[in-house]
Amino acid sequence: MAKRPTIIWTKVDEAPMLATYSLLPIVRNFVKHAGVDVELRDISLAGRILAQFGYQPDDLAYLGELVWKPEANIMKLPNISASVPQLIDAVKELQSQGYDLPDFPEDPQTEEEKEIRAKYDKCIGSVVNPVLRQGNSDRRIAPPVKEYAKKHPHKLGEVSPKSESYVAYMKSGDFYEHEKSVTIEKDTKIRWEFVDKNGNVTVLKEVEVGKGDVVDGTYMSRKKLREFFDEVIRDAKEKGILFSLHVKATMMKVSDPVIFGDAIRVYYKKLFEKHGKELEEIGFDPNKGLVDLENKLSKLPPEKQEEIKKTIEEIYKEQPGLYMVDSDRGITNLHRPNDVIIDNSVPSVIKNGLKAWGPDGNTYDCVITVPDRSYATMYSEIVEDVKVRGQFDPTKVGTVANIGLMAMKAEEYGSHDKTFFPPDDGIIRIVDEDGNVLMEHEVEKGDIYRSCITKDIAIRDWIKLAVTRAKELKMPIVFWLDSLRAHDRELIKKIREELPKYDLEGVEWYIKAPKDAMKFTLERFRNGLDTIAVTGNVLRDYLTDLFPIIEVGTSARALSIVPLIAGGGLFETGAGGSAPRHVQQFVKEGHLRWDSLGEFLAFVEALKLAYKQSGEENKRILIMADTLSKAVSRYLDTDKTPKRKVGQLDTRGSHYWLARYWAEELANQTEDPELAEIFKPVAQKLAENEEKILSEIAATEGSPKDIGGYYHPDDAKAEAAMRPSKTFNEIIDNL
Amino acid sequence: MAKRPTIIWTKVDEAPMLATYSLLPIVRNFVKHAGVDVELRDISLAGRILAQFGYQPDDLAYLGELVWKPEANIMKLPNISASVPQLIDAVKELQSQGYDLPDFPEDPQTEEEKEIRAKYDKCIGSVVNPVLRQGNSDRRIAPPVKEYAKKHPHKLGEVSPKSESYVAYMKSGDFYEHEKSVTIEKDTKIRWEFVDKNGNVTVLKEVEVGKGDVVDGTYMSRKKLREFFDEVIRDAKEKGILFSLHVKATMMKVSDPVIFGDAIRVYYKKLFEKHGKELEEIGFDPNKGLVDLENKLSKLPPEKQEEIKKTIEEIYKEQPGLYMVDSDRGITNLHRPNDVIIDNSVPSVIKNGLKAWGPDGNTYDCVITVPDRSYATMYSEIVEDVKVRGQFDPTKVGTVANIGLMAMKAEEYGSHDKTFFPPDDGIIRIVDEDGNVLMEHEVEKGDIYRSCITKDIAIRDWIKLAVTRAKELKMPIVFWLDSLRAHDRELIKKIREELPKYDLEGVEWYIKAPKDAMKFTLERFRNGLDTIAVTGNVLRDYLTDLFPIIEVGTSARALSIVPLIAGGGLFETGAGGSAPRHVQQFVKEGHLRWDSLGEFLAFVEALKLAYKQSGEENKRILIMADTLSKAVSRYLDTDKTPKRKVGQLDTRGSHYWLARYWAEELANQTEDPELAEIFKPVAQKLAENEEKILSEIAATEGSPKDIGGYYHPDDAKAEAAMRPSKTFNEIIDNL
Repeated sequence: MAKRPTIIWTKVDEAPMLATYSLLPIVRNFVKHAGVDVELRDISLAGRILAQFGYQPDDLAYLGELVWKPEANIMKLPNISASVPQLIDAVKELQSQGYDLPDFPEDPQTEEEKEIRAKYDKCIGSVVNPVLRQGNSDRRIAPPVKEYAKKHPHKLGEVSPKSESYVAYMKSGDFYEHEKSVTIEKDTKIRWEFVDKNGNVTVLKEVEVGKGDVVDGTYMSRKKLREFFDEVIRDAKEKGILFSLHVKATMMKVSDPVIFGDAIRVYYKKLFEKHGKELEEIGFDPNKGLVDLENKLSKLPPEKQEEIKKTIEEIYKEQPGLYMVDSDRGITNLHRPNDVIIDNSVPSVIKNGLKAWGPDGNTYDCVITVPDRSYATMYSEIVEDVKVRGQFDPTKVGTVANIGLMAMKAEEYGSHDKTFFPPDDGIIRIVDEDGNVLMEHEVEKGDIYRSCITKDIAIRDWIKLAVTRAKELKMPIVFWLDSLRAHDRELIKKIREELPKYDLEGVEWYIKAPKDAMKFTLERFRNGLDTIAVTGNVLRDYLTDLFPIIEVGTSARALSIVPLIAGGGLFETGAGGSAPRHVQQFVKEGHLRWDSLGEFLAFVEALKLAYKQSGEENKRILIMADTLSKAVSRYLDTDKTPKRKVGQLDTRGSHYWLARYWAEELANQTEDPELAEIFKPVAQKLAENEEKILSEIAATEGSPKDIGGYYHPDDAKAEAAMRPSKTFNEIIDNL
Repeated sequence: MAKRPTIIWTKVDEAPMLATYSLLPIVRNFVKHAGVDVELRDISLAGRILAQFGYQPDDLAYLGELVWKPEANIMKLPNISASVPQLIDAVKELQSQGYDLPDFPEDPQTEEEKEIRAKYDKCIGSVVNPVLRQGNSDRRIAPPVKEYAKKHPHKLGEVSPKSESYVAYMKSGDFYEHEKSVTIEKDTKIRWEFVDKNGNVTVLKEVEVGKGDVVDGTYMSRKKLREFFDEVIRDAKEKGILFSLHVKATMMKVSDPVIFGDAIRVYYKKLFEKHGKELEEIGFDPNKGLVDLENKLSKLPPEKQEEIKKTIEEIYKEQPGLYMVDSDRGITNLHRPNDVIIDNSVPSVIKNGLKAWGPDGNTYDCVITVPDRSYATMYSEIVEDVKVRGQFDPTKVGTVANIGLMAMKAEEYGSHDKTFFPPDDGIIRIVDEDGNVLMEHEVEKGDIYRSCITKDIAIRDWIKLAVTRAKELKMPIVFWLDSLRAHDRELIKKIREELPKYDLEGVEWYIKAPKDAMKFTLERFRNGLDTIAVTGNVLRDYLTDLFPIIEVGTSARALSIVPLIAGGGLFETGAGGSAPRHVQQFVKEGHLRWDSLGEFLAFVEALKLAYKQSGEENKRILIMADTLSKAVSRYLDTDKTPKRKVGQLDTRGSHYWLARYWAEELANQTEDPELAEIFKPVAQKLAENEEKILSEIAATEGSPKDIGGYYHPDDAKAEAAMRPSKTFNEIIDNL
């Protein structure tokens, strides 16, 4: 008999959590007819806190074990990566609900305080992804979304062949140039050491590595970086175009703020020359953006403040215009390191026809500065491509899916705790426990040294995933790897070792350096052909935004699947985050505009996996997936996504439409007549009651909603607010 | 009244000189009817020698003055750049003809000997081009040649999308990275100084420069170069493809042999490790190629020779295969530095579908190694382009003309005497006569330091030429300049200064970095659109071969015009040289296979200039040009080019066809009926006597010819041999 699969649905925070109150009963009651259980597990911030203090089971820990079992099948909705203030807020709310929780100890002194702090620390920051993401990534556009985009193309700005925008990158001195890489020959411990000019050794870090793991080290010369910024800024000035810098300080959170800081040090050079002493006094840290200066300026006497402001004014006159994040509010590219995030900002410039907003609110050409050649050259390729061949046409382009090497903190993804800033000129080297020096780099004081470990098992799983997907989708796979780059060369060796282990009949595969891979992919893309990019961590991250933004206007509509190494699957939704503002609107005026499209699409994939987990015996599960996919197409085509304003269709109404289309598709399918019979009356009732249901929902719009808590709502209150249509609830609950 | 223009025809050496005996009477007698004189001037090796010793006027000196006058209009046929042995040969021949010439003093001692040697030195090497080339270059495919190629496309090899061939270039440490550049602010003298670690200064060279001249300095790190070769050779090995190196040791004759030598030092590393002492003993110089080792090996005892040969065998087994110049004879890429010349060799690889010959005589993919990024990135762009879009189709592609900055030894063209190899670690700096340091470079012992001067007037003339040609041809012009490269930035400044001085109505212009310029140009090229590349010296040189080879199969059929700065024109023919083997064949068996196509095409252009020089009044000159151009089309279409073997059509017969077609075109044109009347009987007689003329010529095939000298033939004998058809001569001479 077929195994009965269980899909885990995660209880999270804010808008997607609210939407779950309405959506979960629908999916649960639909798929029970295919013998699939849907189980709710709580990974919300409040849930994690309560679990730490024994008020409820630790669902995250449970899932952490489950992901290493082949039966794992998890719908992962977006949750809060809590900052300390958010945590304190959540604790306060829970205390007010009667939970006996200790206050958050900001500065723990006693053993007890330290223990409490340790528990809270387990709730802060990005704690869910590292536990659940035990696999590489598989990102793509689901067919209904692609079809919708082809029928209703979003607007992309025309590109002038005379555009002076271009991608600038370093000639030398970057991470790309200095990378060294080794494949570990036997399980060992490795340590990073700094050796100063006198031979004194400081151990910076120590970790265990296994046979086959790939260890890289590299550094960026700060001197060369600043010379580069100087040259690019001068070039922008000479050409009369904007200067823009694109890094990813959110992900590369140790290295990239420093690169960002150097851009400030060079662009605002005059500021440091004239007021260096004062800036130091008030503790201005350029790595935090110019906002840090604004925040600290009041520490200086008013006349000094004026002088500094005057100097800044002068700088804006002398230097090229800055790319603006928000020209209305005067927020520049250099305001805050996290405002301009490369994976979104470069595609935006492309989308805007290689134009960007300048300080005066007009658009200009711009230098797109991406210092490191590891990532810059592929952007250069696409930017020059649109200059020469014109803007992309979403109705004609193919799709570019992505298989990303991400498992077990692979590559740059896991480099934060191995990024060092040498305290002096000297050498940073990696030494194994037998004392062998695996590699060393001569560095200068302040250079950015970065090291990554990529686990053997993660790499092999990634290769397997690429081959599997190539076969399933019948698309060529391109490994974006540069055989003249040290890390990539080690990966290429493994690929050449692994590939012959598979049946490659019908698998078209390539290994190409990123710029060449981009050229190859773009040619297919423009000709309407589909391609799978198989990339390492950072390129994965950048590409999974780039192509979706061109294809369908946003990466939020892309599927994000983590095929788990152990065989299960993790289906991520909601690239846009958990949307606090949506909750505020709902509480204030009873309108929720969270679009559950991501959940619908992910659930199609979860069902497909459930079918496999059933031993490929229970065809009903496939029918569920297939009909849901068709329902989603109609949902998009008839534009039943929630609207922004109160009184318009909201999340709850959108769920009605999804349920109705899905029921109709199930009723109309002929493969399983018995299943069709079950859903025929449902479809009929939903259609007959359309007006009634929608007006029951609409009646609740415009008034405030009490859900009994922001982080930890009262289930009954929240359910009542999210399921206001008795008619609809009756149809669903009686299924 | 219209000025009566004079076209200079140069008397040169070997095959083109022989062809002149037959061709000159034809053109002279045709164009006299348009009021154009054709004057012969002797720049042959023998002529230069005789002039030095007072036996005839110094025509080269005369032309050296003429090129600086607006009335200059010179047909420059290929002449011998004499080596010493050739000079000695020529002197011997002249002495035997009765000229009282002194022997060549190999090692002059007395004042008299030194004076003699000084005179002979003026005849050695490339002494003609530097005198005559007082302008930038304008290279393109003449319309008849382009039409012919479209109708009769040459074969280009298919490119597999799976090709692993690629262009490898340095990540850092190359000329591209280190370049500095200044524009001179006032006339001054500058000197290059080497400063050692102890502050000792050596002056390396001193020259005068003028206001506005651009002075560059840069260097290539030999350490980085060798690391690069090591990486590329390893990559070729891992991929199982050939290693190939592409430089231009003939033109960059000081720097490039050293780059070549380093490739040998790395590829044959084991040889130096095992036999370093012996190699030093016999004075093996890798910069001269492996042939230098072969030449010197006999100095060693036989058993040592065997050992060394064995090591070389081992190396060939361990290292990747080498790209072969001649696999039948075992001549590798690294045999001689002058065998593989980048401007021809890279296009050949492209033409062959990215395949090259390996040691076993089979073709393989290959790493195309072009160390410096100044030139490599554009090759990378075209190579990746054909991988992605497939081979070019000569029947469909557009044309890419080239305006090259070459005048007054511009750019790398004039760098030989400013290329230095620092004797030790230290600094090379450029200092003006006021002691200002214009730039300095920290170099290591043996690094390749290179400096160039580009004259202000040459740059401005080049910009003017680009604008002029853009208007004449109505094609976009693209300046291939990288705003992040120091030299290019100085040029861009001048362009931005100069362009507004012209009426740019209808001129479409771009400034693009080489790789982007290539992308832009290729897109047009593939779509059948024409583009003008406006490039500096080295790129000029590389591009003027690349596109003609793709378009028409060879660059020998491209027009090479030097619009002289003073307003006149120099029309160069014969990219294939002066062809000594053709002369040997003619003397031996009376068959000359020199194709005068280059002269025909150049003469069309010379006539067009003559028309301008006539004050644009004498339309008959234009008719001459136009009809000649049509005649050339028919000449190509009916395949009247000389054939290789005795008994087939040769140069003399090909001249008959040219004359006949030209006469027919003149007779058939209606614009100038009087001129048509002159040529109608000529055309008729030439047609009627076809069989007779051709058989009179054919009758002389197969027997030896006495022309009375190789370097200095007897005019009467040579003329008799080259004009064997009485019938034809009568028609021509009576014109």
